[in-house]
Amino acid sequence: MLDIFKDEVFLAYSTYASIVVLKMMLMGPLTGYFRMTRGAFANAEDARAHGRKDEETGKKLTRSDPDVERVRRCHQNDLENIVPFISFGFMYALTGPDLTTALLHFRIFAGSRIFHTIAYLTPLPQPARGISWIVGMATTFSMAYRVLKTGMRF
Amino acid sequence: MLDIFKDEVFLAYSTYASIVVLKMMLMGPLTGYFRMTRGAFANAEDARAHGRKDEETGKKLTRSDPDVERVRRCHQNDLENIVPFISFGFMYALTGPDLTTALLHFRIFAGSRIFHTIAYLTPLPQPARGISWIVGMATTFSMAYRVLKTGMRF
Amino acid sequence: MLDIFKDEVFLAYSTYASIVVLKMMLMGPLTGYFRMTRGAFANAEDARAHGRKDEETGKKLTRSDPDVERVRRCHQNDLENIVPFISFGFMYALTGPDLTTALLHFRIFAGSRIFHTIAYLTPLPQPARGISWIVGMATTFSMAYRVLKTGMRF
Repeated sequence: MLDIFKDEVFLAYSTYASIVVLKMMLMGPLTGYFRMTRGAFANAEDARAHGRKDEETGKKLTRSDPDVERVRRCHQNDLENIVPFISFGFMYALTGPDLTTALLHFRIFAGSRIFHTIAYLTPLPQPARGISWIVGMATTFSMAYRVLKTGMRF
Repeated sequence: MLDIFKDEVFLAYSTYASIVVLKMMLMGPLTGYFRMTRGAFANAEDARAHGRKDEETGKKLTRSDPDVERVRRCHQNDLENIVPFISFGFMYALTGPDLTTALLHFRIFAGSRIFHTIAYLTPLPQPARGISWIVGMATTFSMAYRVLKTGMRF
Repeated sequence: MLDIFKDEVFLAYSTYASIVVLKMMLMGPLTGYFRMTRGAFANAEDARAHGRKDEETGKKLTRSDPDVERVRRCHQNDLENIVPFISFGFMYALTGPDLTTALLHFRIFAGSRIFHTIAYLTPLPQPARGISWIVGMATTFSMAYRVLKTGMRF
């Protein structure tokens, strides 16, 4: 094991980064589940595999569906927000914040993204989803602030 | 603070990675701004929250808009190009290039992406956007080349 | 060169991360190639640059095309799967797995994603693409498992 893994803050980062990336990865299979139950596929070959190999059914099932599109928008929002978290969270962990502050950031971010997914897929009335998105953004900005405050080299 | 943050090249990486990721993050709020001013929402619950809680207006405002779609394409292009930069930039910084060369790479990449956003959203006539995209790609390929030249293990 | 680059497992990670990120980056130019040969552009200014500066042609060529959309879905699937690999692969390499096991993970993942692209673009009949996607997911989950087993800090 490399030394960095013995650092408590890095360990907290790797734990929470794992949680949010695993959460994001689950959106893929969920999209697949909705595509199959709704009979709405993106590719003719997928529809054919599902729709009893029949060319006609294949064409009919290559369509979009509101539930599938909702899961996909949720997945896209994860990509747009979790990529910055992975990147800033890592650099933030390397700046050596104290463990309590770091855990506070990681917990709030992970919680906000899990709630965001629930709010998106239920769907809960706004501003539930909007607020969870803003909380996640604010947490990431706070980590970015510390990264840049620790040192900059232009 | 961990030792890596005392490395000048890593500090330059963390500075420029922060700049481009923050730039990418701003596309989210910008999309929200265009959705509100254009009255074009992706979800019925968002349109309802905006459109005076009225079911009818909610349906009418769940639509796409050319300006919103333009910002979203710009955001997507950022994801497609900034993710490789974050990844290769980090590995590149670890190969120990000299600071001047590293800064040259980071500055050109960050500049090309900022110009790309301006060219996309104005929009400037082509090939302005195309060239800034190619410059960013070329910078990333150059860093990838050094990463692979430093060592490979298949 | 920083010490981490002398670690054999990290070297394997940087090699395979480079391969899959470069593969993902190639989807950008490929989209461009299909947009030009199919005459299907996302922006009016791109169509005009291609279509002899003529306003009318510009409008007509701002359209979507099945082949272009296929490449874009493939690119999107890369983003959704390669981002988790980069992130987990890095943390996994830091947990100090033995080189043989690490190489097995990296090789299977890279192979599955290259096959996935071929299966998507040909297109091969299902379940060719589906299986390659599942194999890549499973490899990433296996690395995530080791990361979390090595240590967690909630």
